[in-house]
Amino acid sequence: MTDKNYDVERLNRTQEMINRMDPVDIADKLEILPEKDVAIWIKLLKKDLLADAFTELKPENKARIVNILSEEKIKDLVRDLDEDELVDTLQELPANITKKLMTFHIDKDRRKVVNELLGYPKESVGSIMTVNFLSVKENISPKQALEKIMESDLDAEKLEQIWLTNNSLVLMGFVYIADLIRYQDKSLKDLANSINATVNPNDDQEVVAKLSYKYDLGEVPVVDSENRLIGIVPAEDVIDVAHEEFQEDMSNITGISDNSDSYLVESSFKIAKTRTTWLIICLLTATMTGFIIHRYENLLASAVALTAYIPMLMDSGGNAGSQASTTVITSLYRGDIGFKDFFKVIMKEASIGLITGVILVIINFIRLMILDQAQIGVNLTVSITLLLTIIFSKVMGGVLPLIADKFNIDPTVMAGPLITTIVDTLVLLIYFEVASLLLGL
Amino acid sequence: MTDKNYDVERLNRTQEMINRMDPVDIADKLEILPEKDVAIWIKLLKKDLLADAFTELKPENKARIVNILSEEKIKDLVRDLDEDELVDTLQELPANITKKLMTFHIDKDRRKVVNELLGYPKESVGSIMTVNFLSVKENISPKQALEKIMESDLDAEKLEQIWLTNNSLVLMGFVYIADLIRYQDKSLKDLANSINATVNPNDDQEVVAKLSYKYDLGEVPVVDSENRLIGIVPAEDVIDVAHEEFQEDMSNITGISDNSDSYLVESSFKIAKTRTTWLIICLLTATMTGFIIHRYENLLASAVALTAYIPMLMDSGGNAGSQASTTVITSLYRGDIGFKDFFKVIMKEASIGLITGVILVIINFIRLMILDQAQIGVNLTVSITLLLTIIFSKVMGGVLPLIADKFNIDPTVMAGPLITTIVDTLVLLIYFEVASLLLGL
Repeated sequence: MTDKNYDVERLNRTQEMINRMDPVDIADKLEILPEKDVAIWIKLLKKDLLADAFTELKPENKARIVNILSEEKIKDLVRDLDEDELVDTLQELPANITKKLMTFHIDKDRRKVVNELLGYPKESVGSIMTVNFLSVKENISPKQALEKIMESDLDAEKLEQIWLTNNSLVLMGFVYIADLIRYQDKSLKDLANSINATVNPNDDQEVVAKLSYKYDLGEVPVVDSENRLIGIVPAEDVIDVAHEEFQEDMSNITGISDNSDSYLVESSFKIAKTRTTWLIICLLTATMTGFIIHRYENLLASAVALTAYIPMLMDSGGNAGSQASTTVITSLYRGDIGFKDFFKVIMKEASIGLITGVILVIINFIRLMILDQAQIGVNLTVSITLLLTIIFSKVMGGVLPLIADKFNIDPTVMAGPLITTIVDTLVLLIYFEVASLLLGL
Repeated sequence: MTDKNYDVERLNRTQEMINRMDPVDIADKLEILPEKDVAIWIKLLKKDLLADAFTELKPENKARIVNILSEEKIKDLVRDLDEDELVDTLQELPANITKKLMTFHIDKDRRKVVNELLGYPKESVGSIMTVNFLSVKENISPKQALEKIMESDLDAEKLEQIWLTNNSLVLMGFVYIADLIRYQDKSLKDLANSINATVNPNDDQEVVAKLSYKYDLGEVPVVDSENRLIGIVPAEDVIDVAHEEFQEDMSNITGISDNSDSYLVESSFKIAKTRTTWLIICLLTATMTGFIIHRYENLLASAVALTAYIPMLMDSGGNAGSQASTTVITSLYRGDIGFKDFFKVIMKEASIGLITGVILVIINFIRLMILDQAQIGVNLTVSITLLLTIIFSKVMGGVLPLIADKFNIDPTVMAGPLITTIVDTLVLLIYFEVASLLLGL
């Protein structure tokens, strides 16, 4: 503390203030404070709070902080991080720091756990679960269980419920701590809540989100193939997963790879890079539509009025298709339908398309008659195409996500450009073929 | 039990089996079982399990079950429902049943709470919070707090943390039960965790989802204007909210009002109804594009080749715009940006648009030259329009959600047809004006 601006009283006030802050807010501050202040904050923060704030930092700032910390502080930090947080950190830090931490600061027992966790694929349950939970044999008494809690050095928030196993460590149920306190004369088996949903460490993290949503679980247990408890995913972490999955779905639809960095801070070049690939794909698939229009150029030349309705037809098809795909994707997510309902979905969407299409055609026919005073031939061409477009787009929109799901592709991928390209292409083909027929061109 | 198919042993087995099931699964079964079996299940189910399963039923089945239940069973059911579950139920049942329940089955104390909860607007925090929590004065000892827990008749899952207030009932912090057990010699203030985020009962439920996401909260406290605790929202309920909000966002983008009923069960007419409004709006806004093309019909007649590129230009504009709006909506959600960044967003999107646009133009220019062997004039027209389209769409896509948010409109509403219409219209205007200039038509 050589800086004379920081007299003792002021330091004390700062210390009190920052040690009352939420780790998330502390992290936000650490990201933007000048180097000098960061060093002071680190000195003033309680060990566990520093660890909590540290886990909330962006990767580049984690590296920065580790470089500021003394060897001793690093040891404290590593000790205060839960195994899953440690794993996240190791994956984000540069290789040289990771190596140093693994070799010098993580003791042998933990290194084993950490290495196991590091082995799970990205976005798997194993990569997000925590291994910090308390499990006890189901044949001990509530009093003995309470003693285990007293001995436990887990964070209190990890001790909201304790897990029961049989002698072979197979997961049998869980007990809320409050019940241990209230019913000390009962047996753990009496107090046990049954396990109605478990996940596997190799499952996609989306499975946890779905189960929590369906069963309103406070904590989802992760078990191995022998049904032994190896980790848990608490509801507050499921919220993060749900958010990530939402982002991923949005990205699949609009083709933006999710950027961890803040939008205004990230360089325009970097953002442009993540967006361009998608736009190029769309551009190239548009070759299809261009090609079709070229082929029918003579037809168009003799009935230029037809051109005016191309955007309307294509937009209607696109919208109708994405409505169907959204509904089907949502139902897939809820587990309401599956590939086995393939033909039911086709029939459903075809009938919805027919109803919707007829209504749209009527409105459009009147619009063209009154507003555009269109030729009856043109009007009929547009009407027939519109009807077929809606039916066709609905069916495609309904069926493509089912097919994707069947082949273990994220169905939202289908909601993007593939549907647009297929629908656009077919709309134009129908349009021009109907026009040739009706207008005799 | 007059049905002789149900001998005692079989009944016992069934009873044991169903009383071990998860309420969610029981509800799923009750929805599809024949009337006779439903009556048997209700008889066999434990009271609290019946109540839990009941809350998971669809509205129409809740009414059905209430009509089967004896007066006494209804009393039990009402007693076993938490206030917030009771409120949901009352809102879903037909008016005559609601009135009967309110008058005969809900006692006076609860009626007051229920009436208050009924007063909160749909999708507000008040409408989803639970009023079942335990709060104690912060100056009592951990031992006294443990006694309060022993006396409490709350479900154990509502007792994972207890809340601390001062003498004026102002919320001061919370304590995990595990810490009460482990540190009985400390004071509650020592054990207290500070409150870093609270919500108001009149806030939109989305606020809870955002806070939980940011701060990883196990339970979000709901306070009144004087900072007194009036309810909590547990993380497992936040997952439901996050899911609902996701659905809502998807619906805003594709124009499907969310149907509570299962997709394959719902009638096609009903689904068509929810989808048609949107498609009609899109159809009518397409009048704009049709109108523009009409105006430039002569120009098109003398250069039909131009038509071939209209779909590509409109699709590129639409995609570029929705990429920008998705990014901005996500950043708004995270609280990274706000209306104050209006001009920053414009500059950002303009520069991203310029970079992306130039790349696309180069690729497209080569494509047109080689594949289509397009006239140089047409190629230049398309290129200039494409560049302007991308820049313009990015800026509009970035700015519209900001404006919506400023006026408290859900920004995802903007990601839908408004952006498409504006972009489509302007793309065509640019295209034809550039064409007139360059091709001298």
